[in-house]
Formats: sequence, C-alpha cells, structure tokens
Amino acid sequence: MTVTLEHIRLAADRLQDVAIETPLLRNHYLDRRIGAEVYIKPECLQHIGAFKFRGAYNRLSQLNAEQRQAGVVAYSSGNHAQGVALAAQLLDLPATIVMPHDAPRMKRENTERLGATVRLYHRDSESREAIAADIAAASGATIVPAFDDADIIAGQGTCGLEIVEQLAARGREPQLLLSPCGGGGLLAGCSTAVRALSPAAQIYGVEPAHYDDHAQSRRAGERRSLKHFPATRCDALMAPEPGLLTWDINRRTVTDFLVVSEAEVSYAVCFAFRYLKLVVEPGGAVALAALLAGKLDVQGRTVALILSGGNVDRDSFHDCLREHPDL
Amino acid sequence: MTVTLEHIRLAADRLQDVAIETPLLRNHYLDRRIGAEVYIKPECLQHIGAFKFRGAYNRLSQLNAEQRQAGVVAYSSGNHAQGVALAAQLLDLPATIVMPHDAPRMKRENTERLGATVRLYHRDSESREAIAADIAAASGATIVPAFDDADIIAGQGTCGLEIVEQLAARGREPQLLLSPCGGGGLLAGCSTAVRALSPAAQIYGVEPAHYDDHAQSRRAGERRSLKHFPATRCDALMAPEPGLLTWDINRRTVTDFLVVSEAEVSYAVCFAFRYLKLVVEPGGAVALAALLAGKLDVQGRTVALILSGGNVDRDSFHDCLREHPDL
Repeated sequence: MTVTLEHIRLAADRLQDVAIETPLLRNHYLDRRIGAEVYIKPECLQHIGAFKFRGAYNRLSQLNAEQRQAGVVAYSSGNHAQGVALAAQLLDLPATIVMPHDAPRMKRENTERLGATVRLYHRDSESREAIAADIAAASGATIVPAFDDADIIAGQGTCGLEIVEQLAARGREPQLLLSPCGGGGLLAGCSTAVRALSPAAQIYGVEPAHYDDHAQSRRAGERRSLKHFPATRCDALMAPEPGLLTWDINRRTVTDFLVVSEAEVSYAVCFAFRYLKLVVEPGGAVALAALLAGKLDVQGRTVALILSGGNVDRDSFHDCLREHPDL
Repeated sequence: MTVTLEHIRLAADRLQDVAIETPLLRNHYLDRRIGAEVYIKPECLQHIGAFKFRGAYNRLSQLNAEQRQAGVVAYSSGNHAQGVALAAQLLDLPATIVMPHDAPRMKRENTERLGATVRLYHRDSESREAIAADIAAASGATIVPAFDDADIIAGQGTCGLEIVEQLAARGREPQLLLSPCGGGGLLAGCSTAVRALSPAAQIYGVEPAHYDDHAQSRRAGERRSLKHFPATRCDALMAPEPGLLTWDINRRTVTDFLVVSEAEVSYAVCFAFRYLKLVVEPGGAVALAALLAGKLDVQGRTVALILSGGNVDRDSFHDCLREHPDL
C-alpha cells in the first residue's frame, strides 16, 4: 500500500468546491530577506484554520452508508480534531474526538462548535488509542487516523498538487519545498505530488527541537521513537515517531529533515504577524522558521513554503510576539 | 475630471506583476455566522500590508524622467506612506514622507525600512500640508496625495476590478460590496469598477464612529467636515472630510454609509484573528465589523468585503483580542 499521484488527483476531485483552494502568496519583505522567490501556501486559510480538513474529508466522504450511520472517532490535540469535526458535519455523520486536557482552548472549543462530541483524556495516565478503540467497539464507529492512512495522506497531498499547479500557472516550478512535519502525513502527501511532477525538487520536512523523530530516523536509516516529551509551543507536531506508511513514503521522497528551536519558531510567528499579516500557530510556522534562520541556502531559487495552520490561543500568540520586540 | 473603468483597466495593466493580485477568500465560520456567501478581499496581504501600494505605484509610475529625478513627497499616518515608499523604491526615485509623531510604530519603521526619508510633525501644532509644500518647493518633488487624485483612485480601483473578475471566474457577481472609507479613495475606485460591471450591486462605505464625515455628507447632500477628532483605533480612517474628487464619485456610486463603534471594530479584529487567521488593523476591519454587527440584512446574498490593511502594532492588536475573551 502506498500513495500515488493518482490517489491525490482523486482526492482533489472529492475536495473540489468543498475545501478551499488556498492561494499562493508572495511577499516583498520575505523575498528580499531571503534572497529567493518564495511562494507561501497558507493552509491557515483552509477551513478550520489548518490543512487537516483535506485529509479528513477525503477519508470520510468515502465511508459507505452503514459506516456513515455509525459515525467516526478520532484522537488529536486539535487540528485533525477540527478537520474531522467539520467533515463529519458537512457529511451529516456523528463524530467523537478524543483530545488531551491540555489542548489549546481554541482547538477544543472550535471542535465542539463544529458539533463533535469531545472526550478529554490525560496524556500522562490514559491511552488515547485505547479510549478511541473502546468507543469504536461500543458504537461501531470508524477510527480516523491523524496521518498513517492512505486516504488521509492523499487528501493532504492535494495541498502539494495545488502548489505545483499554481506555480505552473505562473510559469514556475518548485525547486525547493519546505513543509512542517509532525506525523508526516502532510509531508508524505505533498512530497508525493511534488516528486511526481517536479522530480528535481529538493524537499525538506521541518521539525521542532526535541520532536525530531524524522531527523533521527533519517540518520539511523530506520524509524526511531522519541523517549522524552518536553514542553513545546508546537502542539501540532508532537508525534512520538514517524507513521509506518508516512515513513515508507517520506524516506524515499524527502531530501532531508531540518530542526528549529522554540525561539526560531516564535520569531517566525512574529514575522508572519508583522510582514505576512497571517496568523500562524507555532507548529504551522516551523518551515518559515527554518527559512528565516538560514538553515538552507536558497539564494535565487524558487521556494514553496507551507504554513500548515493558524489555531493559536491569543495569549500564546502574544507571548511569541513579545519575545521579539525588535522584529 | 473623473475616474472611469477605462482608467482602472489602465492602472491594472501598470500593476500587473508588480502589485499582488490578492486572493478572494471564503470562510466557513463567517458564512455560517452571516448566512450569506461572503467573499473576502484581504488587502492586508498586499505589498506593505495595505491596498495603498496600488494607487501609489499607479501614480508614481507615470512620472516623467525629470519628475522622477526630483522625487516625491507625501503625508500620511502610515499606509499611504509605505505605499509611496515602496513604489519609489521599485522605481528608484527619492521619497520624503511627512508622518505624525503618534503614527503606529510599525508604520513608521516600515516606511523608513523601505528607504524613504521620514519627517515627523505634531498634529496639534503643525500643518502637514505646509511642510509637504515647503519640501516640494525646495526640491521640486511631486506631492502625491493620499486619495484626492484620479490616478490614486484608479489604482485603488484595481482592487474592485479584481473582485468582480475573481467572482466572475466562480460564476458569481457581487450583490453587495462593503469597503472601509477614510478619505474615500479606495471606495471611489472600487465603487467605480463594481458599478460599471455590476450595475445592480449595493455598495456601502463603512466609517468608524466620530469619523463619519461621509455619512454626514450623505445626509446633508453636500461635503461636511468634522469638527472634533477624538482618539480612535482606526488611525487609517481619520480623514476630516471627503475628498473633492472622491466625494464627487462616491455621492453617485455609493448606496449608503454605515458607522461602527470602536468595540464593534475590535470585535472584528478579534474575529479575523480567530476564524480568518488574518492580521487586520482596526481601520481595515470596519467593513467586517459592520457585517458582524448586523448593520445590513445580507441573508442569502453574494457579499464582497474588503479588509483594507493589516499594519497594527502588537500591543494594540492584543488589546483588541483581550476585549473579547468569549469570542
């Protein structure tokens, strides 16, 4: 089982007029700062403020009548939660989301406002997988994985397909792609699309410090799991290990993985506020952080950059801005 | 002298591949809240974070060689300042901007970073018009008005032209247009384009409380000037009276003017943060504020909404967010 460009094209058909075709943005300040032609794909402007709606809708829209009646269950710290909740609402089927107690308030509230039932759990003492399995066993609900699923990956890949098509409409081709990387679903989908259509592109996944399971796995030549889970602003990128399917894709499609510090992340959030006028959550800003921190030499290149989400609480957002008063 | 669709089309040619063709965005939460199909034109994503670059570049790019050498001078609290500064930088001509001491820090810094010379003045004791006239007399520089100029208006009108064309590409036509209104340049340009191409559209200009000179002028049937200038968040919309040329246009093209309170404005800034993931400055959010406050019945209609700018200091932004903890 893998994911191909054809799967992604089928997903794009399902998402047509349902998901937002997010624009490809340019910014004078960013280009001048970086010395490259940077094309920003702002998935914070997607429904529910993150790319996760793409995969969730692609998955849920393929459930049969019986499955739809039994509904879905998912676990997520917030963006997958909202993606599943909105897809379920649009398709008129019940959704239960298992969320950690410490999920950002905005993510929890939005999930509830979209009509999903939220079941909270404690990260330290409970297993979200076990809770979801119990709910599925009792109700017959379908479990919707956050990333390790071909339909989820294909849905997220529509973001990458759009990038290539939108660049082509401007007579451009991506020479570099930078994407945030948590469980690796967005990266697996987008790298599949970009690798198929622009074989020479360099593709980078970006992780926050201490959550560099992909970078570690790449160095080891096999999947590696994290042992420690320190606090991070990047709640969206706290996956403990690469997915089985996502890793099988990313190990082939991705050029390398980059790691950014918490301060580099808050700088990127602040830069997006000041110059891009976009609200980007820390986990959604890691690829921009890598670019601004000079992790790659991109001088004169055509760079595509994914800002994957914008669901950040107001006080956390202001904390990021205050950290960089001179920006 | 007036401005026609033809002037706007010529401006669009000059701005091609120079200005950003800002996208037309949809948002699930906004549509559901308003009960309409709302198309958001986020000019905060334009170069310099506001529509003002359009008019400035359209004006400056038509200067002859002698005029270019002598440069330009403008007065502005900030967005026109940055628009002129960037246009001058791109066209390689010197620019001096006369700005009030109390302009938002971000607007002043960005203007300087774009290479313009900034001359500060005190609103209470100095005349910015006199200062600009002195600079022009001494240097031969061309004065670039902020709104009361046919080329400036035509440039801003490209925003309205894009709205109509982007809607047409989706098989839609604007039934309503809501635009912020300060001196009336954006509104005059956009209403000219929309009125010409969609004659049946209802067009509304939106002003902040105490700066309702257009609403007063409409009621009086002639241009009225403000007598009092209380503090407002909407620094971009503090024009004391409608322009001569802009009023001559707007009195014919605009259906009516709406007025929103400071609290309605901060609510809109907060809504844009939470649901649209856009950074919108208070003055740029007044049209959204009118919509969210229910000033118009737009049920079931196709509504185009301009968010005109996003240059807001971080603390002012956070103050807006904190005012509405339950949003």
